[in-house]
Amino acid sequence: MRKVCIVVGSRANYSSIKSLMAAVQGHADLELQVVAMASALSDRYGAVYQHILKDGFPIDARVNMLLEGETPTTMAKSTGLGLLELPSVFDHLEPDVVVTVGDRFETIATAVAAAFMNIPLAHTMGGEVTGTIDESIRHAISKFAHIHFPASEDARERIIRLGEDPETVHMVGCPRIDLVAGILNNARVKSSFSPDNLGGVGDPIDWDKPFLLISQHPVTTEFGDGKEQILNTLKAASHVGMQALVLWPNSDAGADDIARGIRTYREMGLAVNMHFCKNLPVDTYIHMMDKTACLVGNSSSGIREGAYIGTPVVNVGSRQDGRERGQNVLDVGYGVDQIESAIRKQVSIGKYSMDPIYGDGTAGERIADILSFATFKIQKQITY
Amino acid sequence: MRKVCIVVGSRANYSSIKSLMAAVQGHADLELQVVAMASALSDRYGAVYQHILKDGFPIDARVNMLLEGETPTTMAKSTGLGLLELPSVFDHLEPDVVVTVGDRFETIATAVAAAFMNIPLAHTMGGEVTGTIDESIRHAISKFAHIHFPASEDARERIIRLGEDPETVHMVGCPRIDLVAGILNNARVKSSFSPDNLGGVGDPIDWDKPFLLISQHPVTTEFGDGKEQILNTLKAASHVGMQALVLWPNSDAGADDIARGIRTYREMGLAVNMHFCKNLPVDTYIHMMDKTACLVGNSSSGIREGAYIGTPVVNVGSRQDGRERGQNVLDVGYGVDQIESAIRKQVSIGKYSMDPIYGDGTAGERIADILSFATFKIQKQITY
Amino acid sequence: MRKVCIVVGSRANYSSIKSLMAAVQGHADLELQVVAMASALSDRYGAVYQHILKDGFPIDARVNMLLEGETPTTMAKSTGLGLLELPSVFDHLEPDVVVTVGDRFETIATAVAAAFMNIPLAHTMGGEVTGTIDESIRHAISKFAHIHFPASEDARERIIRLGEDPETVHMVGCPRIDLVAGILNNARVKSSFSPDNLGGVGDPIDWDKPFLLISQHPVTTEFGDGKEQILNTLKAASHVGMQALVLWPNSDAGADDIARGIRTYREMGLAVNMHFCKNLPVDTYIHMMDKTACLVGNSSSGIREGAYIGTPVVNVGSRQDGRERGQNVLDVGYGVDQIESAIRKQVSIGKYSMDPIYGDGTAGERIADILSFATFKIQKQITY
Amino acid sequence: MRKVCIVVGSRANYSSIKSLMAAVQGHADLELQVVAMASALSDRYGAVYQHILKDGFPIDARVNMLLEGETPTTMAKSTGLGLLELPSVFDHLEPDVVVTVGDRFETIATAVAAAFMNIPLAHTMGGEVTGTIDESIRHAISKFAHIHFPASEDARERIIRLGEDPETVHMVGCPRIDLVAGILNNARVKSSFSPDNLGGVGDPIDWDKPFLLISQHPVTTEFGDGKEQILNTLKAASHVGMQALVLWPNSDAGADDIARGIRTYREMGLAVNMHFCKNLPVDTYIHMMDKTACLVGNSSSGIREGAYIGTPVVNVGSRQDGRERGQNVLDVGYGVDQIESAIRKQVSIGKYSMDPIYGDGTAGERIADILSFATFKIQKQITY
Repeated sequence: MRKVCIVVGSRANYSSIKSLMAAVQGHADLELQVVAMASALSDRYGAVYQHILKDGFPIDARVNMLLEGETPTTMAKSTGLGLLELPSVFDHLEPDVVVTVGDRFETIATAVAAAFMNIPLAHTMGGEVTGTIDESIRHAISKFAHIHFPASEDARERIIRLGEDPETVHMVGCPRIDLVAGILNNARVKSSFSPDNLGGVGDPIDWDKPFLLISQHPVTTEFGDGKEQILNTLKAASHVGMQALVLWPNSDAGADDIARGIRTYREMGLAVNMHFCKNLPVDTYIHMMDKTACLVGNSSSGIREGAYIGTPVVNVGSRQDGRERGQNVLDVGYGVDQIESAIRKQVSIGKYSMDPIYGDGTAGERIADILSFATFKIQKQITY
Repeated sequence: MRKVCIVVGSRANYSSIKSLMAAVQGHADLELQVVAMASALSDRYGAVYQHILKDGFPIDARVNMLLEGETPTTMAKSTGLGLLELPSVFDHLEPDVVVTVGDRFETIATAVAAAFMNIPLAHTMGGEVTGTIDESIRHAISKFAHIHFPASEDARERIIRLGEDPETVHMVGCPRIDLVAGILNNARVKSSFSPDNLGGVGDPIDWDKPFLLISQHPVTTEFGDGKEQILNTLKAASHVGMQALVLWPNSDAGADDIARGIRTYREMGLAVNMHFCKNLPVDTYIHMMDKTACLVGNSSSGIREGAYIGTPVVNVGSRQDGRERGQNVLDVGYGVDQIESAIRKQVSIGKYSMDPIYGDGTAGERIADILSFATFKIQKQITY
Repeated sequence: MRKVCIVVGSRANYSSIKSLMAAVQGHADLELQVVAMASALSDRYGAVYQHILKDGFPIDARVNMLLEGETPTTMAKSTGLGLLELPSVFDHLEPDVVVTVGDRFETIATAVAAAFMNIPLAHTMGGEVTGTIDESIRHAISKFAHIHFPASEDARERIIRLGEDPETVHMVGCPRIDLVAGILNNARVKSSFSPDNLGGVGDPIDWDKPFLLISQHPVTTEFGDGKEQILNTLKAASHVGMQALVLWPNSDAGADDIARGIRTYREMGLAVNMHFCKNLPVDTYIHMMDKTACLVGNSSSGIREGAYIGTPVVNVGSRQDGRERGQNVLDVGYGVDQIESAIRKQVSIGKYSMDPIYGDGTAGERIADILSFATFKIQKQITY
Repeated sequence: MRKVCIVVGSRANYSSIKSLMAAVQGHADLELQVVAMASALSDRYGAVYQHILKDGFPIDARVNMLLEGETPTTMAKSTGLGLLELPSVFDHLEPDVVVTVGDRFETIATAVAAAFMNIPLAHTMGGEVTGTIDESIRHAISKFAHIHFPASEDARERIIRLGEDPETVHMVGCPRIDLVAGILNNARVKSSFSPDNLGGVGDPIDWDKPFLLISQHPVTTEFGDGKEQILNTLKAASHVGMQALVLWPNSDAGADDIARGIRTYREMGLAVNMHFCKNLPVDTYIHMMDKTACLVGNSSSGIREGAYIGTPVVNVGSRQDGRERGQNVLDVGYGVDQIESAIRKQVSIGKYSMDPIYGDGTAGERIADILSFATFKIQKQITY
């Protein structure tokens, strides 16, 4: 039995790896180990660890690493904390392969710890191009990883151009699409879908009428601008006049700015017909993406899951720069007017047809299968 | 005045960056900041911090990060400690650019800290190809760095193939060659060169007769084999029958194995005509490279400085795999016989002629100059 | 010039040491160094570091140490982080004496760091008796401290009974009373006092009518009970029917429970005539204590500053157990009815007369003076 | 089954707690958990973890916390590292009671972690009086501990005077005496005792002739004086002219000074008739104490085990100041002449008769028994 240790560091991480966790758990030759860390342990960020347990997965170790105060300094220090504690965890769990997901700041801690300890490192969702520090983190992790599972064709090519051995690069599609497919096709889930008890604060949403879904995160390289950015988006939504469900940001540096912007808007009494939620269960979020008149903000889900679902998306600012995207995405800057007219345009177009550029819903199974028989070459060497 | 913060983590680091430190200190538009960390603070590894101060440089901060016990686990944890503490240092010093050198484990801590904090990161000696985990570290740092100073032409090309903007990649030669040139051409230094008070233990060396210079470090990806590897090298040297000066290893994972091998050889009474030193001043080491009949082991100095000096080198094992090399280097495996016959061959050939593939002795000045006027683009993006 | 390094870790800490900071800054033979750490650096806990700077004090170093998620585990880990980083700070600042205040969890990090490094440690507010883990921390710090500044006579006696040399124990009164005296006697401050722009959320307060002041913190040894405890207090206040100003809790383990209780009460629509503030400037808080009909909760300020001001106090639960108190304090358990009837009784009695058992307003000056000439014996030894 | 988690941080720690480990392992109502940390994990300090495993005990977690470079700064930082990682360990192991031993720097990390996490803390060997920072650490730990197992009668009284509840203080004797009794009374061990393969370096010892045993550790509060102190002791031993077995120091701040002193003496060729060992198995050390003509230095074993065995001891300097001692100990300062004449006097007196002031050999059994039924009051309060 190969021990596959999956490190989950945030709620976005969890949706990106849940189908692989299930596939590893169900594979005859694999044993699942789960490490929950960073914001996945935080009640402020949706208590992801509780969802993991509720979904029937084990949590073999917990790594508290998030320092209070989301600044670039604390983000770097938090990563140091993770790197300080993960080696003890790996020593204890003795995994045969470690899986790290994507490009958030805590993933580099996982990558360095595993690679330094001569444990084979698998990386999902590498090879993509975006803005923020994630851009550097993602490619640096590719240089540490021993096996790669990119989510799209151009990501696969990019990893190979980075000097990685093509035999170690497997294009499998995106595991988040696995979830989406499962959720949208599952009649039982569909019938039990009820957005009525979302929790959160603010005005109620009338689910029989069209609504906007707003999800905007801080851009780490534009630290300090987050408050104004979210305020512009909220204003644009108010101008459009449609009711809106607004999600709180994740734990990147600058999240406090976004949160402050949201609070300011509320306290000023401007958040009419807006409802604010800390976090949504993945199922609910996917159904919201399926039902919303338009998703507004800078979440990668608009580009990725949105392509599969056909969600009309207004993508604001630089956070998703360079990421491969389908027809459903309309890119705009941070100006109120730009955002407003883009929302109006997308609402008038309505639902797009399905575009599976990020996968066909079988990524998790395929990764698990490859991990069950792959051989790993610990001593890497660039191909040129 | 631009504040250039140079992070020094080991004695090898220091020789690789000393000429840049002098050039920054002497530049009208630059201010030098020095952070000493990791084995540069350790008396066991030659008290490099004392050399830094004695050479007239400041030490603005010290980062104790080395955990006892050189295993892969502690190497990873030590890096975490560095990454935990460097952000506080950078917050305090507020550098305009941070310089990290080469590819040792502590350099990734410097790179991540600076990049996460949106401080421009300069990287020297990137783009080379070697064995050990350094291979991954070096290329990962390139993905974080905002400006690159490779030491050779093929290194420059490799960094560009990694997707770095060519305008940020400056081939300047190797700063270690600057030192070598300075030392070998300085008459005063030459006359004061006296290997008689090296310190250390073991039999004395007769400097009027030919001698071998042995410098062999652990290979992190071959953890556990170090003791046998050094024992083979020592046996080969004994078979050749020439007196030998043996240096202790640096602080990579596995250094204890090498040290144990050396101690075992001594306690067994086999170390005849061998002298053992903890560390040599750079000046002394370069003169030794100039005078030795053959340098044996796996130090990068054989390939790099050796090309400029013309030192006959027997390079043992995988540690320098893939590094560009001149005619002066003869590569062999770990077998006693192989090493012995390679030494005999190199001794019979004698001194090689100079080959400046790693630079012409002006790297430090050129880097300082470029740093004084370069503009940095904090938001990186891969070029393909 | 003796360098006196004062470590400030929270807003309560700051009010307890501000007068000493001013006295050190104004003393001819002393130089002030300030280290801000833990919740003093957190915007969530009132951005104390900004108050420090605005008040004209330097901040010589910042130690980010608070881990997300206020559990006993993270409280212990945060203390470890502080202890990991403070030695670097002390190495850099080279203080002649380090001052730690009171008994919060981060203070033991300061105490251990200084004592281990052979730096004389001064401790204020030792020798008192309370509940929670603070009880152990406070006495443990006394065993590390080289000079003691208790705030009351029985605290002085207790420190001596702990085996401390009586010559090192100086009863000076409480520095928080210095602040209180200054604020209440300063006509300019008085005239500028305006509670109208408190910020915060909830119903407005009519300052011309009587109001309750509620400040209730988690009890670390009753972890998990905080939500119910605060709900009971809020219910009791609602029963009394008087308008109330409610303060958010500090960052001890369990603060999230209290915050959740407050939010629950608000969301249920029960918080009628209640206003909620994150933090009050010290000046405002003291004036509130002077004006309130009754202070309710478990803040030490009720006992300490309350004695001097004559504030009627209802002290709820075990958090202040064993602390010496004046006539102005009425102790009750966690029951709604108990709290309600105690509030009614205190309101009917009204303001008490001044009782200076915690000092006469000159503690800061006296401590600074003693620190300027004291000799410290680094090697401590218990007196029996 | 109560889970008893014993934290072992050094070789001295291990001898002080081994009999309790065996007693817990053999107790029907107790389950043994072992955490190995600090120098117990270091090959440089005798690889204590290997002895633990060889003796049939489990190691449930390992905490690497020792920073390179034994200075006061790194000692404090190492303690911080321990405190950062122990909470994760306790979270994972969920012990019902944590046992910390004595007063070395790492023990305060164990004490703070357990107490902050509301886990009952048991402390052995508290209440004694010595020099160095251990004096403060020991009493501070008493203020955190929920149950106390002092090794002598006056230690018991001192803990009670510190304000601890007498019902929580159990005088059981010293567990190290349990080992001594076991070793000296075990015929099989006795017959297998052979000092011939000690390892180490230097001149051989003729075990049929009288020999000195030298064990001298750094005094943390006299940091920097260690080299001269050990040199004086070695000179005094040379003057006496008797062969001597010299042990390397433990990992306190200043150990490098002692090691340097020893190396200097050897390199100067003065170490005639002296043999140097890194570490002795406990069995061997006890037999050495039974056979030596005189134990010289500042090891606590001279006072404690020495009383039971009757070893003539010359106790040098301040390290054991205040510790209760028997007739077998002669105290002297650091002067060469003083030490020399004290050694001569002790040698002429010879073996002392047994004095069981530190216990009768049943401490481990008694502690295990009490731990199996004790009730713990988590909220401590000083008794006065």
